[in-house]
Amino acid sequence: MKAVIAEIITIGDEILYGQIVDTNSAWMGTELTGIGVKVKQITSISDNATHIVQALNDARSRADIILITGGLGPTKDDLTKHVLADYFHTSLKLHEPSLADIAALFQNRGIELTELNRQQAFLPVSCTAVRNVLGTAPGMWFEQEGKVFVSMPGVPFEMKRMMTDTVLPQLKAHFRTPHILHKVIQTVGLAESILAERLEAWETSLPEHLKLAYLPNLGGVRLRLTGQGDDEAALEEELQGQVEKLPGLIGKYIFAYGEVPLEEAIGRMLQERGLTMATAESCTGGFLAHKITSVPGSSAWFQGGLIAYHNAVKTQELHIKPETLQQHGAVSEAVVRAMAENVRRKLGTDIGLATSGIAGPDGGTPEKPVGTIWIACADKDKTVAKMLSYNKSRLLNIEYTAVAVLNLLRQSLGAGVEE
Amino acid sequence: MKAVIAEIITIGDEILYGQIVDTNSAWMGTELTGIGVKVKQITSISDNATHIVQALNDARSRADIILITGGLGPTKDDLTKHVLADYFHTSLKLHEPSLADIAALFQNRGIELTELNRQQAFLPVSCTAVRNVLGTAPGMWFEQEGKVFVSMPGVPFEMKRMMTDTVLPQLKAHFRTPHILHKVIQTVGLAESILAERLEAWETSLPEHLKLAYLPNLGGVRLRLTGQGDDEAALEEELQGQVEKLPGLIGKYIFAYGEVPLEEAIGRMLQERGLTMATAESCTGGFLAHKITSVPGSSAWFQGGLIAYHNAVKTQELHIKPETLQQHGAVSEAVVRAMAENVRRKLGTDIGLATSGIAGPDGGTPEKPVGTIWIACADKDKTVAKMLSYNKSRLLNIEYTAVAVLNLLRQSLGAGVEE
Repeated sequence: MKAVIAEIITIGDEILYGQIVDTNSAWMGTELTGIGVKVKQITSISDNATHIVQALNDARSRADIILITGGLGPTKDDLTKHVLADYFHTSLKLHEPSLADIAALFQNRGIELTELNRQQAFLPVSCTAVRNVLGTAPGMWFEQEGKVFVSMPGVPFEMKRMMTDTVLPQLKAHFRTPHILHKVIQTVGLAESILAERLEAWETSLPEHLKLAYLPNLGGVRLRLTGQGDDEAALEEELQGQVEKLPGLIGKYIFAYGEVPLEEAIGRMLQERGLTMATAESCTGGFLAHKITSVPGSSAWFQGGLIAYHNAVKTQELHIKPETLQQHGAVSEAVVRAMAENVRRKLGTDIGLATSGIAGPDGGTPEKPVGTIWIACADKDKTVAKMLSYNKSRLLNIEYTAVAVLNLLRQSLGAGVEE
Repeated sequence: MKAVIAEIITIGDEILYGQIVDTNSAWMGTELTGIGVKVKQITSISDNATHIVQALNDARSRADIILITGGLGPTKDDLTKHVLADYFHTSLKLHEPSLADIAALFQNRGIELTELNRQQAFLPVSCTAVRNVLGTAPGMWFEQEGKVFVSMPGVPFEMKRMMTDTVLPQLKAHFRTPHILHKVIQTVGLAESILAERLEAWETSLPEHLKLAYLPNLGGVRLRLTGQGDDEAALEEELQGQVEKLPGLIGKYIFAYGEVPLEEAIGRMLQERGLTMATAESCTGGFLAHKITSVPGSSAWFQGGLIAYHNAVKTQELHIKPETLQQHGAVSEAVVRAMAENVRRKLGTDIGLATSGIAGPDGGTPEKPVGTIWIACADKDKTVAKMLSYNKSRLLNIEYTAVAVLNLLRQSLGAGVEE
């Protein structure tokens, strides 16, 4: 089956000048992929008639579906509707149902309908209006030479509602699309390049219609296996079969299947075993606890923590001996071990995690340069400590450290230690 | 003076499929605008040689500068470098300095340099390498027929560092652009729409060559006044004159001039007054302390904090009376006040901040729905508490709360209370 191709065109200077981040296109990309439509290009252009026409011509030369957002506001710098009317050699006419929607919207807000907003109900004669129940700019659906053009507002919640209610269902009905299935495999602890080497033979053995994507994020790599086919059940089975080969290749680095962040995967492991944890943070300064508590329901397994930023807090609250700090320094195995063990005891949890390091940009020494970080994980039987050395920005040193100590916990829980 | 035009091309399926949001282009757009370069188009395409070449040809027909991100990874689905070598009719050659950087990176991480990563040091002969100190993919700077092409990795922190250190300065030197000056005014505590109303008369009175941008971020709005002209000194003076009108209009909401985050502005105030602070967090779960410790040198004024996630930690470590928790609940003025006062006393600081609320998505009740959050700031003389009610996602509730409690501290320090 021939793939159905879509392109997305966003109109407006605010994206080009970086005043807003274009989150619409990513959302549209996910939704289109979900119905088996392949997005070939996303193009952001300015509110300029010539440029809009050029973008439309370029897009239609490659795609079956052209989705346009933005430039539908009531102000005079919003050209999209007029450009589209010219582009499709048609004129504007008052669209009563849209006017009714707009009037209702203003009534709800208890404000007078302005002439500018009334003008928004005038639509190109040759288009089918796409209802916008959340805003004043209706969408427009055009068809020409078998291609579909849809223009929508750039306001995210308006666009999303119109896509979900009208555009996606109608595209699904209009085009016969292949089934697209994704399998996500989450790994941590192996650099992308090393992971790729381990998977090379398997990856090259994949049939044409299965594609593997490496999606690295802080300290981990998300693997996405995408399959395309006409028989959904057979495709699902084929993907599953391929995924089941992975534990044999990279078993100990896989922490989850599907869209599950590391902290949530660890939370599940702790809950299954009825374990609780606490944190003692120096260099991560609260980010580790933040990552943990970003998981809804984490209160079931996370008791709390201490941010022992100043050494006085390390001695007073975590009972680190002043002589230990004196002798080894705050960034040392001795101190980070004691921090993990003592916070565990202090808050009465099964597990204690600790971090102590030099996040930078200042505070480095020849023996302990910026990016020298100690992490530890203590449970009732043992304490494991590890030294990290990063040379990243302050924030990245902090973020990578949090992922590393969470992975230390994952390993101490015996996760995938077999290979 | 003729405007210098740039286009941005991002390469990689993950953006098209919506697996990641393209935040790079917005950042680049802001930076390019900042040096007087006009971004005309942002194009996201897939890892496909034909498509990459087409995008390069389209872009060069409109722009002087073509910035390319992505497709430089070590894996075989990354084509950019080879496509560029063909496009500029040149071949790949080992670039020793880049290999040295890559080797050093692996040495720091204490892992073996892989062949795949060694391959990344092979660069097109006709390009100038752009150093990448944070990753394994060097950038490439090409010049042809007066146009500049720069290829960079898609990893945000690598790209940003390369842009800041090398690409932006070199573009500024290579092209003669009009003088662009910015004044950034940081506000917190007023919604964008209300701020816009307060500033309407002033904004409309601005001359053509001065433009105001509202850049909202969590709980605050960055105002950026941009001026363009040939006489830099006169422009600077004119901008300064306009900025000096703002305190009279929105004085108490301005926390800084220039690119200073709220937590850093507060840190400066504390340091000037020789004050220290501590945090007691429930619903923010460490994010407040993280925001504070994201400021380099924050150890000078931030002592540490407690994450009292579980009520047991609130009673045991913060001495909140069980009957208080019983009577008012953990999310209450009584509890959050006691948390702020007690953490201040416990860690011996001048100021204590506390948060307690229902971040969601679960845990709400009819009386205390999700988004009900209490914050408090205690100093030696007084404790101020405030109730917030948000109906955002868990993460946004947490982030907005941290900003709100920092603003409470700013106000309790008497900042800009005059209007």
